[in-house]
Amino acid sequence: MSLLVTGSIGIDTIKTPYGVSENCLGGSAVYFCMAASFFSPVRLLGVVGSDCPFDLAEVFVGRDVDLTGLEVRNNSKTFRWAGTYYGDMNERTTDKLELNVLAEEPPTVPDAYKDSKFIFLANTAPSLQLQLLEQVSKPVFVAADTMDCWIEGNLDDLKQLLKRIDCLIINEDEARMLAGQNNLISAAEKVLDMGPRVVVFKKGESGSIICEAGGEKFILPAYPAAEVKDPTGAGDSFAGALMGYLAKVGRCDFESLKTAVVYGTVVASFTIADFSLAGLTTIKKDDIESRFEALRKLTSF
Amino acid sequence: MSLLVTGSIGIDTIKTPYGVSENCLGGSAVYFCMAASFFSPVRLLGVVGSDCPFDLAEVFVGRDVDLTGLEVRNNSKTFRWAGTYYGDMNERTTDKLELNVLAEEPPTVPDAYKDSKFIFLANTAPSLQLQLLEQVSKPVFVAADTMDCWIEGNLDDLKQLLKRIDCLIINEDEARMLAGQNNLISAAEKVLDMGPRVVVFKKGESGSIICEAGGEKFILPAYPAAEVKDPTGAGDSFAGALMGYLAKVGRCDFESLKTAVVYGTVVASFTIADFSLAGLTTIKKDDIESRFEALRKLTSF
Repeated sequence: MSLLVTGSIGIDTIKTPYGVSENCLGGSAVYFCMAASFFSPVRLLGVVGSDCPFDLAEVFVGRDVDLTGLEVRNNSKTFRWAGTYYGDMNERTTDKLELNVLAEEPPTVPDAYKDSKFIFLANTAPSLQLQLLEQVSKPVFVAADTMDCWIEGNLDDLKQLLKRIDCLIINEDEARMLAGQNNLISAAEKVLDMGPRVVVFKKGESGSIICEAGGEKFILPAYPAAEVKDPTGAGDSFAGALMGYLAKVGRCDFESLKTAVVYGTVVASFTIADFSLAGLTTIKKDDIESRFEALRKLTSF
Repeated sequence: MSLLVTGSIGIDTIKTPYGVSENCLGGSAVYFCMAASFFSPVRLLGVVGSDCPFDLAEVFVGRDVDLTGLEVRNNSKTFRWAGTYYGDMNERTTDKLELNVLAEEPPTVPDAYKDSKFIFLANTAPSLQLQLLEQVSKPVFVAADTMDCWIEGNLDDLKQLLKRIDCLIINEDEARMLAGQNNLISAAEKVLDMGPRVVVFKKGESGSIICEAGGEKFILPAYPAAEVKDPTGAGDSFAGALMGYLAKVGRCDFESLKTAVVYGTVVASFTIADFSLAGLTTIKKDDIESRFEALRKLTSF
C-alpha cells in the first residue's frame, strides 16, 4: 500500500569521535525514505531552499522514492543542523540550528499523494503534523514522532495529534516526559490513554518496546554494533524500515508490527555504522535479511 | 553439582518513592541464596556480628541453604547499609555505610565446602575474592562480581582475579570503566582478553548481554515490570538464579548460560517488586516458570 512521509531535508554537519562530516545530506524525511525504500515505494513531502546543493533525484536513483512532493522554494534557505556526539554516542549537543525554510509555511500535499494509506509524520510542530494529516483522505495507519520541545511547549496541540494517529514512535525519555511517569511500562499505558493504538519506545543502544492498547507487548534489544560512527538518522531510518515493511505487507496487526520493529532495528544498525547516509547506501536487501536472522539468533532462547 | 556463594549479610535501610524499609535483612549472599535455592542446594559463606538480629536458619527454612559457613563473630558488628533510590530507580545514593565485620578477616572456607564445583564470589575486594577462591580445590565454574571502587583502586588485584575466574558478572557502566571502552560490545572483547571465558553485562531495566570468548552472544531485555518498589538485591538475585540453574544442570556451555541468564532476569524481576526479600519469599517455582515463558513470548519473533 502507498506510503507517505513528511519531514525535514537538511544540510548537516556532524562531529563524532570518529571524525567530522561537513555539509552532508540529512533530515528525517531523507533517512526515512532511504530506509523505507528497501521495502516499499515511498512518497516524500518536504521543502528545501534554492541553496540546496543536493539533487535528491540522484540521491535516490534506483530506489522507488516519489519526489512529486519535493518543493524547492525560491528565496528560502535549506534547514541546517550541526551537532557533536560524545563518548558512547548517547550524548549529543546541537552546535547550530537554522530552521530556515522549516520556519515558513509547510509544503502542500499534492493531489497524487492524497490517497496515501500509510503515513509517517516526522518530528515537527504538532499543529503542522495535524495540518498535513488533514490533507490525506483515508489513511489506514498513521504514525508520528515528536520531541521534548513540543511536549514542554505545545502539549495541547500534541494531545490533539495523539487522538488522530494510530502509533506514536518516541524516545524513551520523551515518553517518560509525556506520560509524567518514570516507569516505561506505566508510561506506555498513559500514552495509550491519550489516543494511539500503539506506542513504540526507542531506547537507543538498548533497543525498543512496542505496547498496544489491550496489553500486547514486544521487547527487542538493539543489534549489538561494535562500531557506531554516527547515530544521526537512527530513529528516522528505524521508522522508515518499520513503516516500509507495514506498507509492503499492507497490514498493521501486532504480529506485523513486531516484524516491522525488527526490520527498523536492523536498518538503524546499518545507519549508525557510517556517517550521513553512507551506512544505508552501501547495503543491499540481502544484508538486511541476514542481519534480521542474526538478531533472531542473538535473542532467542 | 554443589554451589557455593561468598558475600555479605547485612542490615539494610532502604528508601524508595514507595516507602522506607528500616533495618531489614540484606546483603549479596542473602539475595543470592534466596534466588539460587529455587534451583539448587546452595552453601553460604559469610560472617555477621553478634548484634545480628536475624536468624538465617529461620529466614531460609524450607530451602536447601547450607549455613555451615555462616560465622557469627563475637565482639563484631554486622555490616550495615542505608540507601535511597530516586525517580525511575536507576539512581541511588548511599546514605550510610558501616563495613563493620566486613572490614575484618574474611571467613574461612569450611572443609565441607572445599569440594564446591560452582562458585560465586559476590562483590568485595578482589584480593579477598582470590583468597577465598584459593581454598576451593577443583571448581568447575567460577563467577565473580565487582564494582567501580575496585576498578579504580585495586585494578592489579582485579586483573589477577580475572585470570582465575570463568565468568564476570558486572554492571554495564563498570564494564565500560574496566575496559576503557564506551561501546559495550567492544568492552566485552577487552574484558574477555583479561581472562574470563564469559562476561555477563547487567543493564538494569534494559536487560543483559552475555558474550563468550570466540564470539557467541546472547541479548535479553529485562522483564517489563510495571512496578519497581525496591531494586536492592536485583543483581545478586540475578546471579543467584543464574548460578543456581547452572549448578542444577551441572553444565556451563553457552546454551545453558543463555537459559541461566533468562532465569536470572526472571528472578530479579520478582526481587524488585517488593522491599528487601519479600518479592522472593512470596513466590513459588511455578511463578518463575510462568514468567520465563512470558518473557519468551515477549521477546520472540
